[in-house]
Amino acid sequence: MARKKVRVNEASVVYSEKPELKNPVLIEGLPGVGNVGKLAAEHLVDEIGAKKFADIYSTDFPPQVFIDHDGIVHLVKNELYYWKGDIDIIILTGDYQGLSTKGQYILTQSVLDVIEKYGTKMIYTLGGYGVGVDVEKPHVTGAATHKTLVKKYKKYGMTFKDEGGGGIVGASGLLLGLGKMRGMKGVCLMGETSGYMVDPNSAREVLKKLTKILGIKIGFSKLEEKAEEIDRIARHIRSLEKSAMEKDTSDKLSYIG
Amino acid sequence: MARKKVRVNEASVVYSEKPELKNPVLIEGLPGVGNVGKLAAEHLVDEIGAKKFADIYSTDFPPQVFIDHDGIVHLVKNELYYWKGDIDIIILTGDYQGLSTKGQYILTQSVLDVIEKYGTKMIYTLGGYGVGVDVEKPHVTGAATHKTLVKKYKKYGMTFKDEGGGGIVGASGLLLGLGKMRGMKGVCLMGETSGYMVDPNSAREVLKKLTKILGIKIGFSKLEEKAEEIDRIARHIRSLEKSAMEKDTSDKLSYIG
Amino acid sequence: MARKKVRVNEASVVYSEKPELKNPVLIEGLPGVGNVGKLAAEHLVDEIGAKKFADIYSTDFPPQVFIDHDGIVHLVKNELYYWKGDIDIIILTGDYQGLSTKGQYILTQSVLDVIEKYGTKMIYTLGGYGVGVDVEKPHVTGAATHKTLVKKYKKYGMTFKDEGGGGIVGASGLLLGLGKMRGMKGVCLMGETSGYMVDPNSAREVLKKLTKILGIKIGFSKLEEKAEEIDRIARHIRSLEKSAMEKDTSDKLSYIG
Amino acid sequence: MARKKVRVNEASVVYSEKPELKNPVLIEGLPGVGNVGKLAAEHLVDEIGAKKFADIYSTDFPPQVFIDHDGIVHLVKNELYYWKGDIDIIILTGDYQGLSTKGQYILTQSVLDVIEKYGTKMIYTLGGYGVGVDVEKPHVTGAATHKTLVKKYKKYGMTFKDEGGGGIVGASGLLLGLGKMRGMKGVCLMGETSGYMVDPNSAREVLKKLTKILGIKIGFSKLEEKAEEIDRIARHIRSLEKSAMEKDTSDKLSYIG
Repeated sequence: MARKKVRVNEASVVYSEKPELKNPVLIEGLPGVGNVGKLAAEHLVDEIGAKKFADIYSTDFPPQVFIDHDGIVHLVKNELYYWKGDIDIIILTGDYQGLSTKGQYILTQSVLDVIEKYGTKMIYTLGGYGVGVDVEKPHVTGAATHKTLVKKYKKYGMTFKDEGGGGIVGASGLLLGLGKMRGMKGVCLMGETSGYMVDPNSAREVLKKLTKILGIKIGFSKLEEKAEEIDRIARHIRSLEKSAMEKDTSDKLSYIG
Repeated sequence: MARKKVRVNEASVVYSEKPELKNPVLIEGLPGVGNVGKLAAEHLVDEIGAKKFADIYSTDFPPQVFIDHDGIVHLVKNELYYWKGDIDIIILTGDYQGLSTKGQYILTQSVLDVIEKYGTKMIYTLGGYGVGVDVEKPHVTGAATHKTLVKKYKKYGMTFKDEGGGGIVGASGLLLGLGKMRGMKGVCLMGETSGYMVDPNSAREVLKKLTKILGIKIGFSKLEEKAEEIDRIARHIRSLEKSAMEKDTSDKLSYIG
Repeated sequence: MARKKVRVNEASVVYSEKPELKNPVLIEGLPGVGNVGKLAAEHLVDEIGAKKFADIYSTDFPPQVFIDHDGIVHLVKNELYYWKGDIDIIILTGDYQGLSTKGQYILTQSVLDVIEKYGTKMIYTLGGYGVGVDVEKPHVTGAATHKTLVKKYKKYGMTFKDEGGGGIVGASGLLLGLGKMRGMKGVCLMGETSGYMVDPNSAREVLKKLTKILGIKIGFSKLEEKAEEIDRIARHIRSLEKSAMEKDTSDKLSYIG
Repeated sequence: MARKKVRVNEASVVYSEKPELKNPVLIEGLPGVGNVGKLAAEHLVDEIGAKKFADIYSTDFPPQVFIDHDGIVHLVKNELYYWKGDIDIIILTGDYQGLSTKGQYILTQSVLDVIEKYGTKMIYTLGGYGVGVDVEKPHVTGAATHKTLVKKYKKYGMTFKDEGGGGIVGASGLLLGLGKMRGMKGVCLMGETSGYMVDPNSAREVLKKLTKILGIKIGFSKLEEKAEEIDRIARHIRSLEKSAMEKDTSDKLSYIG
């Protein structure tokens, strides 16, 4: 895994390995609403044991290094993983999306350059769909590049329609829009989420649909643990708020009395 | 209409057809104040049955896809339509104007590159002119590249003068300013509008002047329906505000009493 | 004055004439604090009858055209004027400074490219120095590229010292800093000004120093008329504020009584 | 020290001298939290008598000149100093860090290009670590590119761990992250600081560690004088705040009474 010398420009792909893959599907999960896409993609990497083969650096990512638990720094980046099975898979995840409009286009096109060489025909992008309220059982909405896909994926219980909103912003949208121009097909799976907190619950629902589509079996216990932890935090915050309100009311009463 | 493989840069023109046109005039209507220009351009496309011949993509548009009623995505873009008649016409409309200062110059110059090849001599840009109050019967103000045009178009009931404001910002201004450098003439038709809502009423007035100038006959019923709908919404909002105010007053009275 | 076809990039100099000049000094006055520099430069152009020989367009200026009193548009730009006398002069003024950091460097370097060809050895930049309060008799502060200049110009009653502030921002600073790298000398003349209004009074004081330095005689009556007009407006605003305050006080009294 | 003619682009290194150095270590201290890094680097330059050999200008620095006590301007820049001893040293300090994300990457890579030619193997970056409260005796935290360095520098009393924060932003982080890609090693020394004021006290602690690591002896009296001055100012501000609060309370009492 010798690291090659590299000058970072708007999109610098640094390979640690060049795996042989047969028309791999691309699965994208980068930071976004509720962090749904990133949580789902990282969980999938862990569960199937996907292996990293490339890092993507960019002058459009923040000028920043992260520090791990041992005090070791790593430059912020995106990562490409692969997995070989009945169907070959490339997974894109990472620390950030590009900060600028232009940077997002350039980064997405650099990913398309990579997967085009591998013969990718199909892209799945994962994300959250903010609804502003807590969601007990998150529904998964879809958007696709072609009508045939809409027909196909409706069978998996996804809804395809105009959200009446701003469409899909960021890599999840651009990979479909720009991929279509290169003859690729794609679908975006969006899990309902409040939009206020990271949402492993929504990520699980998105992954359930995706793995069913791909015919892959994975466990969800780690996502469920994360969801329970978030739930505990949320309940704790609510109870603090309730105490504060009650205290506030009793303060006022004593003031009046 | 085979879509060609394309890498999107600051201004990527993707032709679906290369029509033969004779010195077509350019008509521009992109999003702006009251959406007057876009409403007018789109109505004109529909009424005369203009045909799309090119899409313009740009890294300066938001990194975004829109989702249509069937759940199909399309990458945000501008569009060029053509129509052949006694006078040939190219119409420019689209989802967005460029987000950055530099991007607006580059996009406008890419449009000028297209129309220069077709031998365009005359440009009409359409827009709204915000006056901050509701306008019953919107007046159409003009601004032109040459004095001869001012003289000519005053006959159509347009006013040409310094608005005392900031001039014309965006494609409607740049197409005239940058087109003039290439020997083209042009005029901007600006419909009065409050600036608070989309304004099909103002768009109709602008289009009436334009079609009279071009000697084209079109219907306006669809714009009028849209105007009535906007009017209904505005009246509804006003009645809600009135109720809220009355309720507010009665609340206060009961509080005092 | 045939206008040549031009593609506007970050700094596009379009010549209408190529005058023969002998080591002209450059005088810069662009929009800034109190508009002191621009007012001074434009007044100088008018008084000595300087002639325009080039326009500078830039994708870093706002994407905008201005409309004149006759309804004719012109793309926003900077302008270069020349005047031939005992000493040859080039004057830089215009509608805007570059909007971005990088754009300001590029525009300034494009001006230096022009004057370097003409053999310019000396640059005078004009600007306002905001002090936050009204100034009856504005003092002129200087800053220079070389110690010999400080010594020379102190004789004209200018002060040279650290302002304890942020230095000089924009073209007035960059022309000196970047010009020095090309072996040019320069001085910035900064007129005290409140910073709240355009200040023809401060512009006159700056021009008085500059014309004395250059050995040029000009009239100041137009600047004085503008200064009186601004003064009238300021007095009117103050009287309105006074009335409003008095009314406000009497309202309160009647409310209490 | 003849200044060469130069066109400033995103990173323009202008040499005044090309010293011969043997695998110099790089020490970076640019403006940042508490100005700790810049204070430390400048103090080191003064104490060891390091000599400037290059200026770095950039279109990503503010378009600005500073004015010194004599009224002389200098364009904002970064500076490279060298010192030859048992170990050769290059020190990077300056007026600003790059303003844009992309600019920071380009500037950092231009510095790496310089030191790579000199055979640099090791980078020390200096900065402040904001903790939001006053710190009597600032601790020095570290972050490193390699585990061997963590082990080595822990012996000097530095802590290496995940801060739970956003990592290291700016040149102090990028030099490590991008330097690692070129086979260089590096460590960031971060002094605790409140983050509210410039902190010579924290800078001294950082420098004490660094000079011990490098085996260099320097005095700290100037930094201590600065620290005492800052301390006097802080005490004065606190006493003013106390008076204001007491006055405020007595005002209220007299108002009630």
